[in-house]
Amino acid sequence: MSSSLGTLFRVSTFGESHGVGVGAVVDGCPAGLHLSEADIQGQLDRRRPGQSDLTTPREEADQVTILSGVENGLTLGTPIGLLVHNKDQRPGDYGEMDQVPRPSHADFTYQAKYGIRASSGGGRSSARETIGRVAAGAIAEKILREEWGVEIVAWVSSIGSEQSSDIDPETVSRAQVDATLSRCPDQPSAERMEALVREVLDAKDSVGGIVSCVCRNIPAGWGEPVFDKLDAKLAQAMLSLPATKGFEIGSGFAGTQLRGSQHNDPFVQKGERLGTVTNNAGGVLGGISSGEPILFRVAFKPVATIGQPQQTADFSGKPVTMEAKGRHDPCVVPRAVPIVESMAALVLLDLALRQKVRG
Amino acid sequence: MSSSLGTLFRVSTFGESHGVGVGAVVDGCPAGLHLSEADIQGQLDRRRPGQSDLTTPREEADQVTILSGVENGLTLGTPIGLLVHNKDQRPGDYGEMDQVPRPSHADFTYQAKYGIRASSGGGRSSARETIGRVAAGAIAEKILREEWGVEIVAWVSSIGSEQSSDIDPETVSRAQVDATLSRCPDQPSAERMEALVREVLDAKDSVGGIVSCVCRNIPAGWGEPVFDKLDAKLAQAMLSLPATKGFEIGSGFAGTQLRGSQHNDPFVQKGERLGTVTNNAGGVLGGISSGEPILFRVAFKPVATIGQPQQTADFSGKPVTMEAKGRHDPCVVPRAVPIVESMAALVLLDLALRQKVRG
Amino acid sequence: MSSSLGTLFRVSTFGESHGVGVGAVVDGCPAGLHLSEADIQGQLDRRRPGQSDLTTPREEADQVTILSGVENGLTLGTPIGLLVHNKDQRPGDYGEMDQVPRPSHADFTYQAKYGIRASSGGGRSSARETIGRVAAGAIAEKILREEWGVEIVAWVSSIGSEQSSDIDPETVSRAQVDATLSRCPDQPSAERMEALVREVLDAKDSVGGIVSCVCRNIPAGWGEPVFDKLDAKLAQAMLSLPATKGFEIGSGFAGTQLRGSQHNDPFVQKGERLGTVTNNAGGVLGGISSGEPILFRVAFKPVATIGQPQQTADFSGKPVTMEAKGRHDPCVVPRAVPIVESMAALVLLDLALRQKVRG
Amino acid sequence: MSSSLGTLFRVSTFGESHGVGVGAVVDGCPAGLHLSEADIQGQLDRRRPGQSDLTTPREEADQVTILSGVENGLTLGTPIGLLVHNKDQRPGDYGEMDQVPRPSHADFTYQAKYGIRASSGGGRSSARETIGRVAAGAIAEKILREEWGVEIVAWVSSIGSEQSSDIDPETVSRAQVDATLSRCPDQPSAERMEALVREVLDAKDSVGGIVSCVCRNIPAGWGEPVFDKLDAKLAQAMLSLPATKGFEIGSGFAGTQLRGSQHNDPFVQKGERLGTVTNNAGGVLGGISSGEPILFRVAFKPVATIGQPQQTADFSGKPVTMEAKGRHDPCVVPRAVPIVESMAALVLLDLALRQKVRG
Repeated sequence: MSSSLGTLFRVSTFGESHGVGVGAVVDGCPAGLHLSEADIQGQLDRRRPGQSDLTTPREEADQVTILSGVENGLTLGTPIGLLVHNKDQRPGDYGEMDQVPRPSHADFTYQAKYGIRASSGGGRSSARETIGRVAAGAIAEKILREEWGVEIVAWVSSIGSEQSSDIDPETVSRAQVDATLSRCPDQPSAERMEALVREVLDAKDSVGGIVSCVCRNIPAGWGEPVFDKLDAKLAQAMLSLPATKGFEIGSGFAGTQLRGSQHNDPFVQKGERLGTVTNNAGGVLGGISSGEPILFRVAFKPVATIGQPQQTADFSGKPVTMEAKGRHDPCVVPRAVPIVESMAALVLLDLALRQKVRG
Repeated sequence: MSSSLGTLFRVSTFGESHGVGVGAVVDGCPAGLHLSEADIQGQLDRRRPGQSDLTTPREEADQVTILSGVENGLTLGTPIGLLVHNKDQRPGDYGEMDQVPRPSHADFTYQAKYGIRASSGGGRSSARETIGRVAAGAIAEKILREEWGVEIVAWVSSIGSEQSSDIDPETVSRAQVDATLSRCPDQPSAERMEALVREVLDAKDSVGGIVSCVCRNIPAGWGEPVFDKLDAKLAQAMLSLPATKGFEIGSGFAGTQLRGSQHNDPFVQKGERLGTVTNNAGGVLGGISSGEPILFRVAFKPVATIGQPQQTADFSGKPVTMEAKGRHDPCVVPRAVPIVESMAALVLLDLALRQKVRG
Repeated sequence: MSSSLGTLFRVSTFGESHGVGVGAVVDGCPAGLHLSEADIQGQLDRRRPGQSDLTTPREEADQVTILSGVENGLTLGTPIGLLVHNKDQRPGDYGEMDQVPRPSHADFTYQAKYGIRASSGGGRSSARETIGRVAAGAIAEKILREEWGVEIVAWVSSIGSEQSSDIDPETVSRAQVDATLSRCPDQPSAERMEALVREVLDAKDSVGGIVSCVCRNIPAGWGEPVFDKLDAKLAQAMLSLPATKGFEIGSGFAGTQLRGSQHNDPFVQKGERLGTVTNNAGGVLGGISSGEPILFRVAFKPVATIGQPQQTADFSGKPVTMEAKGRHDPCVVPRAVPIVESMAALVLLDLALRQKVRG
Repeated sequence: MSSSLGTLFRVSTFGESHGVGVGAVVDGCPAGLHLSEADIQGQLDRRRPGQSDLTTPREEADQVTILSGVENGLTLGTPIGLLVHNKDQRPGDYGEMDQVPRPSHADFTYQAKYGIRASSGGGRSSARETIGRVAAGAIAEKILREEWGVEIVAWVSSIGSEQSSDIDPETVSRAQVDATLSRCPDQPSAERMEALVREVLDAKDSVGGIVSCVCRNIPAGWGEPVFDKLDAKLAQAMLSLPATKGFEIGSGFAGTQLRGSQHNDPFVQKGERLGTVTNNAGGVLGGISSGEPILFRVAFKPVATIGQPQQTADFSGKPVTMEAKGRHDPCVVPRAVPIVESMAALVLLDLALRQKVRG
């Protein structure tokens, strides 16, 4: 188990779907920051299920409580405990699932690793685990915004084969993103995506997608070569999310087809700073931020739990037909948007503080 | 700076292009392992420049010396110091480069971060930095092979738009990979790739590519949720390499277009173990190895240093035309093959030891 | 801030005297362990104030809740969240203390470090912070006991100049320790100590003391040279406790006066294992456990907060006479006994798991 | 194995008595510092054996080479590799010692831990391991001195029962310390100590002692509660040294006998800063530096290897009489002086950088 991330702004998360609750401890938050539950609740609300007919109808209020580290509305520099109670604290009764590992789910590997697993829907592999990350990320984002003017905006750039038309990373805003249920800031594409999700839902199936993210106003100099490069830590953070299968920054996989003469970003003076004409680098050179916007994309596979019957095998290897009960998200990517933003904030603030040592 | 990686098998690298040498300290290597320089030299030889007309003709012997941690051919369980001397220890004289940051290179960001940078070709952002990783990775790989029978094989699956036909990850071997200069185990594709590299070389340009990698015989249970998931640590390791822009595991970005009913990997008994019929997961479920082969791909951008003149700006923002001196690799991906394997080995062994605690 | 300890069994604590509560997250607890709040409550009860007329009469129930990581009475291998609610969650109103840093207390240094400090009695420097440690330590101790038969017993060996007569570390038990209010297992010494504490209490003063601790049945081989040696980690753990000023193991400071010929512990066969005739080493050689009992002592200074008026200065440097309100512990060492045991357990289990990798 | 120390200024040491050499990698050294081998050699010379008739006559030049991280006399911000070659690289031939673990030495525990041990005199448990620490500490000390004016001075305050008269920690200097062979800055005491060492040497015996250390000009605010408190990290660092058995800060063990009214250090304005009238705290309150001098003491046991015959047992438990060959240091404390200073510097700089984040 390694549920801690970060060197100077360090987050330790805890909690399963069942049990008393989920949350995080944030160690290393600067002192003297104005902070209340309201600063955190916004991103939790964007993350929670039941926001539209596109997601699971499970209603969870997911109200956060600050346990420590804040007095009279100001952070003390001491660890901030964060807790969200679970609505249903009883151990799960998943019946068939006890005997049959769900295909493409972590039931099998948790059992192999720990010799035991949560009876409930996924334990720590459940999306509910991300609550602690989002709560901590909201604090990180507040500091980044107040101290450096950082803006982090993620959006859905594809669902299945439905792709968004080009989004301008220099201007895209959370208001634009939240204007559509699918969180794609391009309305016509959003409508096609939503139609696709409803179709998939009717078919008791699921579908994957891609979340794009831009981080603006990052000064040059963040990132710690060679193993904690900015892009390396972003990649770790994103691949640590449930259901992710890929990460690319800047030109990514497509850029491998270009020549150096096409791909190189020439330097040019931009106001006070030296910038680049193009941004194939995605804002990172040699693992260190360049001052250009950081641009990356995260691939999410289709949700593993589907209502259709599946031919598979139980833990003993006996062939069985499995049919998942209940209703599940047919597509996680709209809800993944604030989660991706939160992970980006956690990575960026930690590297910002590590660079601040050199100030 | 963060030049250490790993929790129980911990590697700390050091060294620039100039100075006395480059190397690594490996802390946590199990005691009683047979080890000599010969176990390490093989992968260093596959990594070094000058192996064919496709790479830079710089000849560097890159002979490794074991400084400590081994006595009478056996590891002591104490830190293993590894050193490769630099041939040329004089500080570089790069003339124009002192004033002009090379486009898409780390000159600018190192200067922004540290307020100073190596006069030499790249300092820690140079490919030479990977020598310490490869030396340490060779030790990790030996342990993985001897204790678990792990096989790690990487190959070039594309250069520019030239793609390999399908390679069978269950059987591909290093001998097949090394049979072509481009390290693509499919001969006709390899020839097209090599022709492309020569064309690019003649044009004083460069080109990117993709390295694929398979890790076989990994038992189920490796990977530490939630932040040190196996795929998350692989992603960090690969994005920490120079010139990488993307990482995907299993179905990756393409898999986002599938439905859950297409993408899910049904379970099936395979001899002694429960396996899966397909392997869209790429051998990892919930961040933990499933027992199926681990399959991932790494995107490398075209080399930034090219011989063609480039319009750019100097550090003061003044427009200049830059023309790189000397000869540089037009394409790094063939040499990246052993580097990718080494990083995979470092990640896998560390997680293997962390799982061993539970044994 | 660094409120995390341990590499494989990792504890992150949080919480101040005021606020919602105090607690810890334990990451890396082995799966499949029987665990309930009852396993933890015992040591918390031994730690809490109000146990006798020797300590502060503040009554705090300090009931622990397990937030996560346990289902159906078994640990899941996932992080265990632990929470003890504070009785009084209002920010403190300490009046004079806002302007005047208490002598020999952390008011001044917290203000210097963070630019802010908890209005309440000490914030993270308060003894209340140790609740998370004791809760986590109780879990560690259970594992040590069940897997290796480890016994950890601490006792009060001196209060002020009142010293205990010799206690046999091979046999001393917690029942013997708890048989006296002062937690000194030697009844006549205990009575003198208790008389001294009452005298000090009447004088509105305080007094220091020494806690001794033995850890039995530790197999040879625990401890990670060179920086995480067993004695080095114990020293860090003990000096991280409030009010501690010294640590010694085995012969300690007195042993510096001996000759090697007097101090050396000759080897001798003891049943199945090679042991030593004497144990001046205190059970640790070269930073690694030898199989002999681990013996160490921890020095606690007199409590800083006293009822007597004190001549000191306020934050601006102006001379003032300070008189602490309320009633405070005149002597912390009896309550420190379970805290010392808990820290020992946290250190030992982490090193046990790190050694298990080599098994 | 854990041969790394520090969070932001991180040192990883390597090397045994035999093998190619010993050294360290320093990761996180600030960029732009003037640094050459000469800055490091001074403390290595103070540490090396053969400086007087009081120590072992083994002559080892112990010349350090900087392998990386420095160009044109300036640090690059990249890892600094440091190497000292061993004079004798052959595996040792210790004859009898192969069969018989030396009493109070780490032969037995290394064998128990690793299942193997260096044939040579102690491997990583040898005093030679401290070379990497001293080399790295010299760099840390230079930064502390240049950026904050920090002065670190250690001295021998007792050998056996010979104690120094009071030394003024506000003024004691390295020149005074080095003026006597025993490194006790009080000449009459030094002479008694030296006579004792010669007497012990003649008796083929050894003797322990205490090293005191003062760190001046440390600003208030260094130290990271709760586990990386300044005194906790100093304690870990000192107990990680070979042959140490105790650590105390400020009033230490003696202070446990005082009343709070005697022990408390009242505040008083001192020039620009708020200081304390007395310094029983030893410069640390709540684990954070107060601005007063940091004062601590380290207990060293008598050297285990003595020339006298000893009754002990071999690895199989058979009683034997052991007689150590060769000549060994009868007393390590004079040579321990620069080692203690180096460890203090490593701890202080790391905490200084961690506090700088808040600047």
